[in-house]
Amino acid sequence: MATALSRTDEEAQIHALIDDWARAVRAKDVDAIVAHYARDIVAFDGIGPLRLKGRDAYRKHWEACLAMCSGPMLFEVHDLDIEARDDLAFSHYLSRCGGTGADGTEQDGWFRATVCWRRTNGRWQVVHEHFSAPFDPESGKALLDLEP
Amino acid sequence: MATALSRTDEEAQIHALIDDWARAVRAKDVDAIVAHYARDIVAFDGIGPLRLKGRDAYRKHWEACLAMCSGPMLFEVHDLDIEARDDLAFSHYLSRCGGTGADGTEQDGWFRATVCWRRTNGRWQVVHEHFSAPFDPESGKALLDLEP
Repeated sequence: MATALSRTDEEAQIHALIDDWARAVRAKDVDAIVAHYARDIVAFDGIGPLRLKGRDAYRKHWEACLAMCSGPMLFEVHDLDIEARDDLAFSHYLSRCGGTGADGTEQDGWFRATVCWRRTNGRWQVVHEHFSAPFDPESGKALLDLEP
Repeated sequence: MATALSRTDEEAQIHALIDDWARAVRAKDVDAIVAHYARDIVAFDGIGPLRLKGRDAYRKHWEACLAMCSGPMLFEVHDLDIEARDDLAFSHYLSRCGGTGADGTEQDGWFRATVCWRRTNGRWQVVHEHFSAPFDPESGKALLDLEP
């Protein structure tokens, strides 16, 4: 699903980790999702709050988010771009994301994702993650129906 | 204004560049803003569209955004965190940002920013930038009144 070609071993490693993480999101497997996060991760998610500090806080947020979707979870990774050197990497992609809400209606939209990585003792972990949808400054509404 | 301590020469360089860039934003100096961007930058901005590809497209977007503010521009950088190794770096911060709208009212809010850097021929440039406000999944509204 991810479309970019990896240019280095490190970039191939990050690519595989993102594929693995996206599978965990689709499976709504919170343990497998947060297994990729560093203990001191700082996250900016698409919905409030403004910022989440630390893996434990971010885990609780993920549990609340996944509880909003009762049906199958849609999570596609598109236009993935990765840069890695030494023990640092960053990546960004567009995600088509959705699910079935409490009222039974299916909803999906496009989001933007930036993921920053640090390798410690040979293990890559996410130290910063930023998901969002842009908003319309006129209406103040999040723009969930934009397409790439 | 930026609060984190830099741990390496590279991180100190990025810190200085962010300070310089934020001054350019406050001065509404588009040339100085885009001087920090790589030609192939991919940007996710707080307001639509979903994605901006390339410095020229992002420059036009900046011009349109700055034209929305008739008065002095507020742009503060808080809780800046930077990691750099070799020729790659990423940084994130919270920004209190605002100005005077077309109707003369002052508006400000908190945004999240992630900035990713690549050094080429000794020169650091921004290759990816992501600004956003979170939204409320109930109302669909961007949450511009959250505080850290």
